[in-house]
Amino acid sequence: MTAYDELIAFTRETEALAQVQGRLGWDQETVMPRGAATQRGDEMAALEGVLHARRTDPRVADWLAAASDGGDPVRAAMLRHITRSHARNTKVPASLASELARVTSVAQGVWAGARAADDTAAFLPVLSQVVALRQQEAACLAGEGTLYDALMDDYEPEASASKTAAMFDRMRPRLVALRDAVLGAPTPPALTGSFAAEGQMALARLLATTFGYDFTRGRLDLAVHPFSSGSGADVRITTRVAADDPFNCLYSTIHEVGHACYEQNIDPDFALTPLGQGVSMGVHESQSRIYENQLGRSRAFSGWLFGQMQAQFGGLSVGDADALYAAINRVTPGYIRTESDEVQYNLHIMMRFDLERALVGGDLAVADLEGAWNDRFAADFGVVVDRPSNGVLQDVHWSVGLFGYFPTYTLGNVYAGCLHQTLRGDLPDLDAQLAQGDLQAATGWLRDRVQRPGGLHSPADTVAAACGFAPSEGPLLDYLEAKFRALYRL
Amino acid sequence: MTAYDELIAFTRETEALAQVQGRLGWDQETVMPRGAATQRGDEMAALEGVLHARRTDPRVADWLAAASDGGDPVRAAMLRHITRSHARNTKVPASLASELARVTSVAQGVWAGARAADDTAAFLPVLSQVVALRQQEAACLAGEGTLYDALMDDYEPEASASKTAAMFDRMRPRLVALRDAVLGAPTPPALTGSFAAEGQMALARLLATTFGYDFTRGRLDLAVHPFSSGSGADVRITTRVAADDPFNCLYSTIHEVGHACYEQNIDPDFALTPLGQGVSMGVHESQSRIYENQLGRSRAFSGWLFGQMQAQFGGLSVGDADALYAAINRVTPGYIRTESDEVQYNLHIMMRFDLERALVGGDLAVADLEGAWNDRFAADFGVVVDRPSNGVLQDVHWSVGLFGYFPTYTLGNVYAGCLHQTLRGDLPDLDAQLAQGDLQAATGWLRDRVQRPGGLHSPADTVAAACGFAPSEGPLLDYLEAKFRALYRL
Repeated sequence: MTAYDELIAFTRETEALAQVQGRLGWDQETVMPRGAATQRGDEMAALEGVLHARRTDPRVADWLAAASDGGDPVRAAMLRHITRSHARNTKVPASLASELARVTSVAQGVWAGARAADDTAAFLPVLSQVVALRQQEAACLAGEGTLYDALMDDYEPEASASKTAAMFDRMRPRLVALRDAVLGAPTPPALTGSFAAEGQMALARLLATTFGYDFTRGRLDLAVHPFSSGSGADVRITTRVAADDPFNCLYSTIHEVGHACYEQNIDPDFALTPLGQGVSMGVHESQSRIYENQLGRSRAFSGWLFGQMQAQFGGLSVGDADALYAAINRVTPGYIRTESDEVQYNLHIMMRFDLERALVGGDLAVADLEGAWNDRFAADFGVVVDRPSNGVLQDVHWSVGLFGYFPTYTLGNVYAGCLHQTLRGDLPDLDAQLAQGDLQAATGWLRDRVQRPGGLHSPADTVAAACGFAPSEGPLLDYLEAKFRALYRL
Repeated sequence: MTAYDELIAFTRETEALAQVQGRLGWDQETVMPRGAATQRGDEMAALEGVLHARRTDPRVADWLAAASDGGDPVRAAMLRHITRSHARNTKVPASLASELARVTSVAQGVWAGARAADDTAAFLPVLSQVVALRQQEAACLAGEGTLYDALMDDYEPEASASKTAAMFDRMRPRLVALRDAVLGAPTPPALTGSFAAEGQMALARLLATTFGYDFTRGRLDLAVHPFSSGSGADVRITTRVAADDPFNCLYSTIHEVGHACYEQNIDPDFALTPLGQGVSMGVHESQSRIYENQLGRSRAFSGWLFGQMQAQFGGLSVGDADALYAAINRVTPGYIRTESDEVQYNLHIMMRFDLERALVGGDLAVADLEGAWNDRFAADFGVVVDRPSNGVLQDVHWSVGLFGYFPTYTLGNVYAGCLHQTLRGDLPDLDAQLAQGDLQAATGWLRDRVQRPGGLHSPADTVAAACGFAPSEGPLLDYLEAKFRALYRL
């Protein structure tokens, strides 16, 4: 065996164990008996120890030093990913990695309790620990760059905070103008009624199949928070059901199907290698968003969905497809990011991005975070936060140390805007297809252009290759303005 | 940390990873998408590699050499288990262990296909490989003893084939006499009808709870073959449903609940250590059997079950509790071990025990196995095997290399007989309790006497300590004769 072959064989085993870890995570969120939580913690810690040892194994450095890509782009990409991952893992001392795992595990529980009790003070001490540990970790990784860039790089390789900030600054005025105009117009009626769980799940399964999800290599279950889990031949999704709001179930499903199809559609030759998973959080989110929003919340698709919902639930409070389209695209003031609409969503991200950069950079003390959040929310949304669970405590991310992750949501929207523009150009009959519930051409285009290469190219190159141009915010903003100006008759 | 502490910490991680392996097995049999099978094989192989490396880690030998039990019986038991397991694992070359894993994995698939096609010839070549590899493995382990003893020791430590054979020889005449007498008497009517799956599962859940299964640390799902999986705080069971035979679902559930309660009720201080699981297959089977048979198929419990089944399914084809009791204890001629009754079951085991000892010892060639099976079946059961799936191909065990496992089923029955005799003496009101569906005293007795110590004592000592006498076949035979002579009015 050559050094390259030995390295890949070792890496494949590591990736297989990482899939096992993912499967345990799925189990924990869906089927695990509640009394098993403590033992599961021990099981996860043991597996994490095995993975950490493999990811920092000194043989990897030796194999990397001896391996050659022989001019082959797939081999070059493999070596690039393994080099990058090994460097990140070996730069962080094992004691720090283990302390981070321990503290974030505790912090997530503290956060959940604090949010339930609307008690920010109960959360801040452990959040200070998390911030300090992530700062230490970032210092190990940052080199010449900023601490925040070092963290963001984990989720979106080759992204930079300064370029992201500049893009957000360009986006903000148009988003604010659109939001203000929309909120100044009459709000269309919401869908009301009570919708049986079985009917919602039947429709969720139909939507998953319609959007190309392969149930022979996956499954759909209920969980508190919808997610997609796993790569390759075992990619599972979850959704949730609220009797008075079927859109929660249906659009969560389409969103997770976007993530899952990305994983299912990667070249099978890349399975259980570093190329065999979505290339970045931003590109991942571009798939979930374009499935959910540009396709799933389109006027054309609303027509098909209206018929399906009528068939499943009988008469609806919204009388026709136009009214359904308006209901699934309602823009209303609100505190909660995850309940936000396409127009306001990115404004929620931008304020988190600024706050977390200030936290990580040391310009904002954890003790001052809640005040900063509330001031910023009032400035950006014109609403006073009424309680912490509607404010600084609403998201799990910071409790588990996910600093640098939030901007990838908006990057995903930006990528989705670019992809959608090119997709529309390539598929002139798309609306006619969507009106028939026929997603094959659209999801096939995304599969071949974006999903299949997996980690072969960089995130930005992946999107650029699919679009034919370097990604920028313009197409997303053009799309949002056109859609919501028409819908709200502005 | 002392050498003992280091050893235990390392062992706890290994046991935690073994639990993960068990959870993946559960996943595979219950919820895994069918398209995930190949990838799952890679994941399991990677995890098995990690476990094998830990189980043969040279540091374990060093820690064992330096560790002291300080006169503490728990520590002594820990060291005894770890010494035994490390010795077994290091005596078998890694190449042989890996080849065994590979060949048995293939052989199981070949067996399933051969059984479905009733084609013994398709199975024998791979079975020859399995036998040869297990013989090689046994030769690594046997020392002064026989190959078969070395294999049996994996499932029932300290058992010996010659003592087991002598016991089986003592049991056979009384079992044959009882079987012949029972088959000579009129056969009571079976339960007939169609029973909704939901009702069967509702009753299965009720039975599980009634027998003490803790659903906060487990769950009940459907699978092709019923099983119990996991230890400590996460012990899951499965059952199956046949519309025309609710006893299949109900008694499989009680059987697996016996296994699962054993695991759930072990001293929590032993969790994720070698003491934290059932001490042997024989003792495990004693719990599943006494739950299922001596308790679950008793006349007293039949009274309660009759009421529950009436409540769940309405009128039954059997008109009263006595008729139900007769129906759940019907003895009829049959080919299949797993469908057998309490009287004939052990005769099925005895013939497998003799055949597999001859195979492993080299006295029977794989090519002659089917003929030997059919001759022996005709001699023992007076019936000519009509097809391989009713004969030599009926059990999965040999395909996966489980030679030495079959006798533990009868050992379990023998242990259950001993435990039941003492239990009856200690609980004079047991029948009155069973008639009310009150299993608390009986399962509590088993929990405290048998289950709680886990692996603290040897298998035979575990049973002897619970019974107050050394286990022997007498109590089981007395129980069977008394029960079936009364039921069949002999």
